[in-house]
Amino acid sequence: MAKFIEDGTRYQLDDPCIAPNSAAYLWNKKMMLHMNCRGYAVSQYMDPEPRKYTHVPNLAAQSFMQPEQPYFSHHPGRFFYLRDNQTGEMFSAPYEPMRVSLDAYAFEPGLADIRWKIEKLDIELTITLSLAANDVLELWQIRVVNVSNHLRDISLIPYFPVGYASWMNMGGQYNTELNAIVCSSVTPYQKVDDYFKNQHLKDLTFLSASRIPDYYEVSQAAFEGEGGLHNPSSLQHGGNLANGEAHYELPAAIMQFQYLLAPKASDSLRLCFGPAKDKAEIQQLNQRYLQIDEQQIKAESEDYFSQAQGCMKVNTPDQQFNHFVNNWLPRQVFYHGDSNRLTTDPQTRNYLQDAMGMVYLNPQACKKAIITALQQQKFSGEMPDGILLSEQAELKYINQVPHTDHPVWLAIVLSAYLQETNDYSLLELPLAWADQATQSSVFEHVSKAMQVLCEANDERGLPYIAQGDWCDPMNMVGYQGKGVSGWLAEAISYALQLWVPVCHKLEQTQLANQFEQHATQLNQRINQYFWDGQWYGRGITDNGVLFGVSKDVEGRIFLNAQSWALLCGAANQQQSQQMLAAIDEQLDTPFGVMMNAPAFTQMRDDVGRVTQKWPGSAENGSVYNHAAAFYAASLYANGLGERAFKVLRKMIPSNENEDLSIRGQLPVYLPNYYRGAYYQYPRTAGRSSNLFNTGTSAWFYQLLVEQLFGMRGCSEGLLVSPQLPKEWLHASAHRKFRGATFDIEFVQQALSENAIQKCISVSANVSQSTTLTISNKSTNTLLIGGFTPGEHYSLTVTLSGIETELSAQTTRAKKVEYDEH
Amino acid sequence: MAKFIEDGTRYQLDDPCIAPNSAAYLWNKKMMLHMNCRGYAVSQYMDPEPRKYTHVPNLAAQSFMQPEQPYFSHHPGRFFYLRDNQTGEMFSAPYEPMRVSLDAYAFEPGLADIRWKIEKLDIELTITLSLAANDVLELWQIRVVNVSNHLRDISLIPYFPVGYASWMNMGGQYNTELNAIVCSSVTPYQKVDDYFKNQHLKDLTFLSASRIPDYYEVSQAAFEGEGGLHNPSSLQHGGNLANGEAHYELPAAIMQFQYLLAPKASDSLRLCFGPAKDKAEIQQLNQRYLQIDEQQIKAESEDYFSQAQGCMKVNTPDQQFNHFVNNWLPRQVFYHGDSNRLTTDPQTRNYLQDAMGMVYLNPQACKKAIITALQQQKFSGEMPDGILLSEQAELKYINQVPHTDHPVWLAIVLSAYLQETNDYSLLELPLAWADQATQSSVFEHVSKAMQVLCEANDERGLPYIAQGDWCDPMNMVGYQGKGVSGWLAEAISYALQLWVPVCHKLEQTQLANQFEQHATQLNQRINQYFWDGQWYGRGITDNGVLFGVSKDVEGRIFLNAQSWALLCGAANQQQSQQMLAAIDEQLDTPFGVMMNAPAFTQMRDDVGRVTQKWPGSAENGSVYNHAAAFYAASLYANGLGERAFKVLRKMIPSNENEDLSIRGQLPVYLPNYYRGAYYQYPRTAGRSSNLFNTGTSAWFYQLLVEQLFGMRGCSEGLLVSPQLPKEWLHASAHRKFRGATFDIEFVQQALSENAIQKCISVSANVSQSTTLTISNKSTNTLLIGGFTPGEHYSLTVTLSGIETELSAQTTRAKKVEYDEH
Repeated sequence: MAKFIEDGTRYQLDDPCIAPNSAAYLWNKKMMLHMNCRGYAVSQYMDPEPRKYTHVPNLAAQSFMQPEQPYFSHHPGRFFYLRDNQTGEMFSAPYEPMRVSLDAYAFEPGLADIRWKIEKLDIELTITLSLAANDVLELWQIRVVNVSNHLRDISLIPYFPVGYASWMNMGGQYNTELNAIVCSSVTPYQKVDDYFKNQHLKDLTFLSASRIPDYYEVSQAAFEGEGGLHNPSSLQHGGNLANGEAHYELPAAIMQFQYLLAPKASDSLRLCFGPAKDKAEIQQLNQRYLQIDEQQIKAESEDYFSQAQGCMKVNTPDQQFNHFVNNWLPRQVFYHGDSNRLTTDPQTRNYLQDAMGMVYLNPQACKKAIITALQQQKFSGEMPDGILLSEQAELKYINQVPHTDHPVWLAIVLSAYLQETNDYSLLELPLAWADQATQSSVFEHVSKAMQVLCEANDERGLPYIAQGDWCDPMNMVGYQGKGVSGWLAEAISYALQLWVPVCHKLEQTQLANQFEQHATQLNQRINQYFWDGQWYGRGITDNGVLFGVSKDVEGRIFLNAQSWALLCGAANQQQSQQMLAAIDEQLDTPFGVMMNAPAFTQMRDDVGRVTQKWPGSAENGSVYNHAAAFYAASLYANGLGERAFKVLRKMIPSNENEDLSIRGQLPVYLPNYYRGAYYQYPRTAGRSSNLFNTGTSAWFYQLLVEQLFGMRGCSEGLLVSPQLPKEWLHASAHRKFRGATFDIEFVQQALSENAIQKCISVSANVSQSTTLTISNKSTNTLLIGGFTPGEHYSLTVTLSGIETELSAQTTRAKKVEYDEH
Repeated sequence: MAKFIEDGTRYQLDDPCIAPNSAAYLWNKKMMLHMNCRGYAVSQYMDPEPRKYTHVPNLAAQSFMQPEQPYFSHHPGRFFYLRDNQTGEMFSAPYEPMRVSLDAYAFEPGLADIRWKIEKLDIELTITLSLAANDVLELWQIRVVNVSNHLRDISLIPYFPVGYASWMNMGGQYNTELNAIVCSSVTPYQKVDDYFKNQHLKDLTFLSASRIPDYYEVSQAAFEGEGGLHNPSSLQHGGNLANGEAHYELPAAIMQFQYLLAPKASDSLRLCFGPAKDKAEIQQLNQRYLQIDEQQIKAESEDYFSQAQGCMKVNTPDQQFNHFVNNWLPRQVFYHGDSNRLTTDPQTRNYLQDAMGMVYLNPQACKKAIITALQQQKFSGEMPDGILLSEQAELKYINQVPHTDHPVWLAIVLSAYLQETNDYSLLELPLAWADQATQSSVFEHVSKAMQVLCEANDERGLPYIAQGDWCDPMNMVGYQGKGVSGWLAEAISYALQLWVPVCHKLEQTQLANQFEQHATQLNQRINQYFWDGQWYGRGITDNGVLFGVSKDVEGRIFLNAQSWALLCGAANQQQSQQMLAAIDEQLDTPFGVMMNAPAFTQMRDDVGRVTQKWPGSAENGSVYNHAAAFYAASLYANGLGERAFKVLRKMIPSNENEDLSIRGQLPVYLPNYYRGAYYQYPRTAGRSSNLFNTGTSAWFYQLLVEQLFGMRGCSEGLLVSPQLPKEWLHASAHRKFRGATFDIEFVQQALSENAIQKCISVSANVSQSTTLTISNKSTNTLLIGGFTPGEHYSLTVTLSGIETELSAQTTRAKKVEYDEH
């Protein structure tokens, strides 16, 4: 069975056929590699725009990463043929391209590497892949063990296809001096200007080795021959590679290493694979990575990934959940925050939400991102659709389409940042504007963005949607300049409500009142224009048609319109109950909550492109995890923790074969979606996109810290207000907070359903405190203040029915103040 | 052995492994299909821009057709699995994807269809593909014969992968009403405007059948399973297709037909495959093509291809040459002229040269193209880089780069048109300008274009090259505005010399003198600035460096600079001999004459992009047949017919296995290139690009008609001045000319080498003439005038040494005038 191993820092999949497209990913600041359990790979690096160094065997589109990436026999990958030279028997590792049934198979992605353990023909192969910490380079280590009792004569043949790099020029040859196969190409272009733009490009792809190969081949076709990749002609009948070259032929880096292994003997091989500008760079990389100590290289890579530490480690009765939360989720949050999804112009909303995730790993990174974003704001207050991360970068693709929601995320990320850090000085930082040198404070920048949100209204006071809000492809609701977004009205109300306390804090009372009033008005209008009797509609089209409502046959109900009505407080108790019932009935599935239902099966041209996506995929009715996380947030915000946890928990695939096989994904990241259309296309429902670029991770992590475990910052200190599932009688969390660390043990007494639904009373027992101040903020919230950075505190929080008891013990605490409010 | 069959109207390749990528092509006005002998296909249609209805399994670039297109197991194709249901044995036809060794194999492309005959497991399959004459539709007929003596239970499974059509939406299902597998997709886009632009697109791909399939599958992955395409899981162990659908999964149209065949019994199946806008269109196509008589459909398609008739049929001792010239070359010329290479903005030079080819098939088509081109000329005289063929069309890719040669081709095509038709009235036709409504005559248009050519000179009087001349990628010789083209100087001189007689004819003496003077000056300057002592340089860079000369290590000699110096008369006798020696030594190869040598192996940034193409490919030193045809033209123009014929003859692959295997192409079309770099990369030298888009075919045909057989029009009638290879003691040609037909038999007496090099005297014996007038224009040229349209004339022309005898017999001739000049 698939499982976490090595204390959850590694996963193990023991069958290549259960979830054939399941994968893991590695990255550094310059590159990303998405590695499938069977050897197929999608990799890219920044130069400065995303580029590939291995290619499909035809002229491919330059494109963002695709969901549910299809693999096929000649797709790029990294493969190892192994042949017994005495018998001619052969297999390939990890599994492709031969697909020979193996005696043992394990795909073991770790936090900083990816490993396979393969056994077949009494040969054990341990293959480990890591990335150079600071270079665009794959580092491979292959250990071969003869587990038999006789001498073995074997060939190990790494087969790394390089593919169709260019119609202008592509080829490759073995270079003796570099002991590398060097494949060259010229990035195709037709205009003179591009020649100069392209000059820095790394048009070489190389494979270098720690040992001189006995034979090699660079022509893919010569290697494969008539035999096919499942039985390459060049390896049949004991033949050896022909030391061939590729001359405007599809190149592949293929080396053949001969081993004579005594019984139980082993040998190791190191390979480097990646792009380079020229041979000098290959030489440098070889010197750096093949000639120095392996442990040092490994340590560098592990150092990088060790930054992916969240502010919390948990221990709950749900062991798989613990591993995911403690190791893999912060890793994904860090990936987003540190790599910016390997784009040079991230969408503003993505960039800000990814930064929000970094609040819980490295608040300075979040701060930097906020500053970067605000420096690109116009003096009018308008935010751009994408944030340019380098001088050469341009707004591309979707960032050329006007969206109306970007300022919303400013308030949300700033609120999170201030909550966690209490660093209100950021608000005073003067920053220039994109179109004006005048400097204004961060507070003024954000307030102006809020103003923009408040003003872009129609005659009803409802916000225009233009060509999309959070939902990019909802691009035709308002493209004629009239349509409005119900979700956006809610999001603006929510954002304003987050910003109002900040205004108060800065004693900007007039602004606070103005924003508060606008939020109140919005909530009224939301009920006036969008409430459909049982749930909220999603928007009103250019032609005045309310959609996402009961009369619609497709797209009857949209999750976001409900979640954010809960978040912004527009929905009253009765409405909330009606909405939740509708969600349960129409949107909930065993694989998560769908974003809308029924999924559109044909174009609705007053809604837009979203309705043309495949039903149940992406924004058209999938379990879109980002939206599901919003929903969980809205549930937590309304004290519905039990329900919220179920929403979150469903996002993590289980170890069970059946679930793995349906999802097609390992529980090492959150995908952007699982297929929805549960009632329309049951066969595919639950299938993962296997795309790990998603705003979900930041929200998921925030909800765990601040809601599930309820350890949220405020001006006075740390609020503790957990909403743990009732079956967790014991759970503990290790929380880093403003320089101090807290170990909190949560003890829950069996709670009646009722008790949780209403409120939890809180009490605290404190002993041996120094600077700690503990007080009740409300019946279910404790405030811990007065702690000292650098100190470590241990507390026990007890939760019970109507009267939950909260007890806290601090180590080395000298003084406790306990205030009853 | 491979050979022509059916009187040369069909070719037969009897082994799928000799030239695995060799192919044939079919087209109609709306689509083109390039079909490989093993089943792989590249197809596109116009909607109005080129689109595909089958796709590779990943997001592909929109691109022009690539030379040496690589195929791989999941590449689009049309395949037929055949399984003996009693034994489970299986093979695939034509050869892919199983690559099972067959008992009999024949790939038999015809003029109007493509056929395979396959035998294996005592089953004979005859598969025939044709295209609907007026629709975008493939028509398949599969005949299955049980050649054994016992009852057979077999499954025939057409497997037509549809591939990755769209990341937004793709899938497919079987539709009972249509008896078709219908794969749907949404062309990906992100901007609202594109939604409206895309609405007409045919986003369905369907496979319909004349019989209801017993089973079907639409999911490619479900079909293939773990078995791989060489042994699909779904067909193993006697299993049948699972009637599955594709839901945002790679779709494939796969049907399973069960046959119970008595000994020697047979059955037939018809399939339609293509794109459609909607189900109604599929229904119409089914009704049109599955429900009416097969013979009628076939006749329509044959009617279309029967337009591909040239003005000449020949019979020479070289049978393969005859078949090629009589059937396949005019077919290729017609493809170019009638389909415009399936672009909406053909490059001006291609468009005009393709039109030139049509002079010999359908002069009206040529006339129409000339008019279309001139209507897009600016009032300044400047010609655009591409000709827009529809209102929506735009200048794309290479047509956004300024080239300087376009007007040259106007004079060349008009000269050919006038020669063949004597239709000088075209010159008087008034046409508006692209930027001015004023109408000017065609003569004025062309003369103005010639003026532009005469004026874009530097201080030396040499023509600027800007960002390329005929050689598109020679884009950095003059991008700074100073570099000049030696070839262009020659081409302008030649074009002017073609235009001068036209000016005289129209009594525009002043213009004629001016152009003549400019040509004379150019020829002087060519010798002054470009002659390098043994050959002519190709150009002078922005920095004043003459290149393509003996001091260059790479790109020492360019063929075009020599050919056109011969054409324009700049080279004197001694220079000509030196050039020819240099060409023989440095450029000639067994596969043709290379365009330049040595091929560049690194960027030369004062020459440009051409130097970055793979050495020996395309314009960087391949046997670029278009340039080789120019060379042949220059040899014929200088009476070097023997040498010229060798150049032409090398362009046609032979039937010999060795040559087929090196070229990788069948002698059914001329490719745009064979790999050159003969001395640098001998392994790949001679390999065909397998691209049949090339200006070569028009020139080749013109040279055959007007030079090899020497039957060229002039104002007074038909000039006869053959330059036949000396080993052809007998040859005959059937020539249509201005409404009359001529059957000319050529008899050559053994000629001394000397005699050919110098001149051939001509004599004619005529009997029984009516309106025919035969006179000697020179010692080796006969003028036939006074003939009657609609009449048929038979003549015998005898060629001998210094005194070649030319005798002509006319049938039904009543009167002969014989003038000695």
